[in-house]
Amino acid sequence: MQNSGKHNNDQLIDQYLAGNRRALSKLITIIENHGNGMHSLWERIHPKIGQAFRIGVTGPPGAGKSTLVDQLSKQFRTHQRTVGVIAVDPTSPFSGGALLGDRIRMSDLATDSGVFIRSMATRGSLGGLSRHAQEVADLYDGFGFDYIVYETVGVGQSELDIVQAADTTIVMLVPEAGDTIQAMKAGLMEIADIFVINKADRPGAERMELEIQASLDLRADSPGWRPPVIQIIASIGDGIDALSEAIDEHRRFQAENNLLEFRRKKRQSAYVQQLIQSHLLARFWQPDMVLRCEQAVQNNDCSPYEISQWLIREFFDENES
Amino acid sequence: MQNSGKHNNDQLIDQYLAGNRRALSKLITIIENHGNGMHSLWERIHPKIGQAFRIGVTGPPGAGKSTLVDQLSKQFRTHQRTVGVIAVDPTSPFSGGALLGDRIRMSDLATDSGVFIRSMATRGSLGGLSRHAQEVADLYDGFGFDYIVYETVGVGQSELDIVQAADTTIVMLVPEAGDTIQAMKAGLMEIADIFVINKADRPGAERMELEIQASLDLRADSPGWRPPVIQIIASIGDGIDALSEAIDEHRRFQAENNLLEFRRKKRQSAYVQQLIQSHLLARFWQPDMVLRCEQAVQNNDCSPYEISQWLIREFFDENES
Repeated sequence: MQNSGKHNNDQLIDQYLAGNRRALSKLITIIENHGNGMHSLWERIHPKIGQAFRIGVTGPPGAGKSTLVDQLSKQFRTHQRTVGVIAVDPTSPFSGGALLGDRIRMSDLATDSGVFIRSMATRGSLGGLSRHAQEVADLYDGFGFDYIVYETVGVGQSELDIVQAADTTIVMLVPEAGDTIQAMKAGLMEIADIFVINKADRPGAERMELEIQASLDLRADSPGWRPPVIQIIASIGDGIDALSEAIDEHRRFQAENNLLEFRRKKRQSAYVQQLIQSHLLARFWQPDMVLRCEQAVQNNDCSPYEISQWLIREFFDENES
Repeated sequence: MQNSGKHNNDQLIDQYLAGNRRALSKLITIIENHGNGMHSLWERIHPKIGQAFRIGVTGPPGAGKSTLVDQLSKQFRTHQRTVGVIAVDPTSPFSGGALLGDRIRMSDLATDSGVFIRSMATRGSLGGLSRHAQEVADLYDGFGFDYIVYETVGVGQSELDIVQAADTTIVMLVPEAGDTIQAMKAGLMEIADIFVINKADRPGAERMELEIQASLDLRADSPGWRPPVIQIIASIGDGIDALSEAIDEHRRFQAENNLLEFRRKKRQSAYVQQLIQSHLLARFWQPDMVLRCEQAVQNNDCSPYEISQWLIREFFDENES
């Protein structure tokens, strides 16, 4: 059975490497289902990874992230660039982010073979979210997409981890009282490479831009790149040209300063760390260890701290080779 | 130095066990700063843990969670019960949850020695949030508080983990179009032991209650407890009596069915797992290992998968005792 599964995977990888979208789609599903046995996949695509440019888009619920991603994708397509989108659906209801249904309106892109869109659920990912998002991005990269766009609501640590794994991070705000201050409090000001003020026809857009510029003035540690602030109206595509130019400019800036390679290595290190964590935990929590833990907790003689120390001792004693 | 640190901690623990609030406060700070050397603390308070009743309050930004927690605390105080509150501040700005400043209005409680309030930041906790929240709750428990209340916005996996660690989980909504459906999509319907509709004087409260009741009717797996739906106006304390009764009732229900003990053991198991994870990772990522990882990533000869396999092999070879 295992051999047959391996064989199927190898076939799938062949098809994927030959540019088959259905194979790409199936591989993503396998990854999302915590599929193992993908070692040969990663070994085979590793040399191909590193060509795509990765863009992260984050911002509060209702900022218009999906609309922006749609417009950006169309913009890239007019320049004959291909795009892979990873829309990270929120765990929570209240963030109001893109649920699967929302993507339906991306209908003119849905039939375009130069665009690939995948939504990932955060619920139940048990901390594996950023790892899976990274793996899907690597799959896109190996498939040959020119751009990879992560779209995620700016709430929660793992969502922020994803966005920070991008080459260019776009923080999106809408003119609403207090939003700038909230973004500052949350440290979103520091992760932004580009600010976008959406719905810039609303009152308050100018004031918001002034607030952001003022806070950028205060940044002493500015390392050469000052995030531009771009006003757009995503729903009618207004300002998308300027945004797209800003992205190019940030890309050039990074390329000239060897920062792209730096970010890439950082991503790889983080990925190695995640793989090691999964592996260590899987190796530790064998059925027998789970049982011992349950029994110790039931007995209630020892504190969780003592139980953990005891189990760790047992684990290393038994793992002498 | 280490002995002196240990000695200081022991003194602090003595003071804490003698009911000193300042010592409690200092111990929380040590925990938040990832303080180790607290082994003797956990061993000493373990026998005292398990008396407090833990309540989780979650809901969308702006639902009025802090106000509810304030009112509940006052209610408990009128019955001479003591309360420890853990307000988990959102990582993100946009969740609109209680920032430190908000708590200032809790002024009549601030001088009450039967109430202790601590805000915890989610930012930078690197996945340790639910562990720290659990540890602070255990500290409250060992200190002798009758009730422990977690307050957290219903966004993000770790925030949900915290709330689910409670004995009674309150899901709070406000009458706004679509909120019920959003809550259903997110699975919040399944974690609620009690529903609260705040701002029940607004139009739509009745309809929201009908929607929730209808969705509860559909639950086939209902294990004996049907979550009540309670309409309140938290700002004026309206409905707090009814809520407090519902909490008591849920507590009785659980006590009669041995569910409290079940939840307690589940919490302890989860805690052991978190301790083991921290320990394994700390043991793995010695400076030398970090260096080897960095070098391997720099060389770029191998995929992250291969690097992780190689480092794990080295780790276990070197940990033969």
